[in-house]
Amino acid sequence: MRKLYIGNKNYSSWSMRPWVLMKQAGIPFEEVMVRFDSFDANSQFKNTIGALNPVAKVPVLVDGDLVVWDTLAIAEYLAETFPQKQLWPRAAADRARARSICAEMHSGFGSLRNLCGMNIEASLADVGARLLNDDPDLPGEVERIVQMWSGLLDAHGGPLLFGDFSIADSYFAPVGTRIKTYGLPVPPAITAYIERVQALPGVKAWIDDALAEKDFLAFEEPYRQGR
Amino acid sequence: MRKLYIGNKNYSSWSMRPWVLMKQAGIPFEEVMVRFDSFDANSQFKNTIGALNPVAKVPVLVDGDLVVWDTLAIAEYLAETFPQKQLWPRAAADRARARSICAEMHSGFGSLRNLCGMNIEASLADVGARLLNDDPDLPGEVERIVQMWSGLLDAHGGPLLFGDFSIADSYFAPVGTRIKTYGLPVPPAITAYIERVQALPGVKAWIDDALAEKDFLAFEEPYRQGR
Repeated sequence: MRKLYIGNKNYSSWSMRPWVLMKQAGIPFEEVMVRFDSFDANSQFKNTIGALNPVAKVPVLVDGDLVVWDTLAIAEYLAETFPQKQLWPRAAADRARARSICAEMHSGFGSLRNLCGMNIEASLADVGARLLNDDPDLPGEVERIVQMWSGLLDAHGGPLLFGDFSIADSYFAPVGTRIKTYGLPVPPAITAYIERVQALPGVKAWIDDALAEKDFLAFEEPYRQGR
Repeated sequence: MRKLYIGNKNYSSWSMRPWVLMKQAGIPFEEVMVRFDSFDANSQFKNTIGALNPVAKVPVLVDGDLVVWDTLAIAEYLAETFPQKQLWPRAAADRARARSICAEMHSGFGSLRNLCGMNIEASLADVGARLLNDDPDLPGEVERIVQMWSGLLDAHGGPLLFGDFSIADSYFAPVGTRIKTYGLPVPPAITAYIERVQALPGVKAWIDDALAEKDFLAFEEPYRQGR
């Protein structure tokens, strides 16, 4: 049985992506949750994940002897292994666009990722308003997300980015949680898309687990003193 | 005819990857070089590339109506479009490993990328020695490259990372130029691999063009005052 190593569900946005993808697509897997005790070299987390793969980051997918790391590589591996699940959009041009936006997420959106860390259980709209005002890049990054999603929802008529569920929706699911946590202002059509994604059983299952986790990690919390 | 938009060949490591990939694999394309005049919002560069794609970064591949951006998405698009070229390794497990290291490059190696910018024509071994001494992360990143390449070269018996040329070699070709430019210390087997890569016709063609460019861009040059 393939195993997916992940971090804390409230915080680990990269772990969320392949977990949600497999859950929503009905690909069986065993979850191995390795708590973020710390990211020091001698932490339990770094030792456990580093034994699988020298990068020592989650997620990691272990399938028999094969260790696949990095979210995008896991997504491509799953898409190849389960062609009948149609994890990428069906049309070649849409696949290329879906891969472009996932790769853009993978390497971009520095302010959104660094300043608005995923924190599903928190409500930090006041922090979001301050960050939008203070950070030079965050407003443009939110605008880019709105433009990207609006364009795709218009082009395909929804309900999801490329019509049916695809890797792209799983890739941006953590962005939806950030928009909610930090109260980032987006048009109603974007809020509605986020709600549709969060109502998907695979996404809802992750969010429910995150809310049940109740594991406050001070080093993941630049804005709160406690739960 | 598909068009690949790229930046200056001496400096643009991301542009180098798909250019080298297509050249080496014999995939015909038209090169559109958009000089890095500056990265300001009103630069010729940002205006030209931003008209293709809101991210306004190179490389961008334009194939008829389709615009594909971000190196990894371009590589996947080409691999799908030209299955006979076998751009990823043939075995499924090797493909997953190749995708893992490319995705790792895509999102990691922050010090190598930020401090040791590609500069093919320069010789900056003194700078490299200082950076290795001063930066806390650079030595570990070089060590990780050595470990990654050594493991793959041993496993496949060379000459390239997965035996034959693949996307992985094109992805790490700019890293080889950085190791040379900054004189980063690597074992002889790694130097020999870099030399083999740089002798591939597709890679050699890029390097020759970069050396012929003679376009000194002060904002790309933290260490030199002139050529």
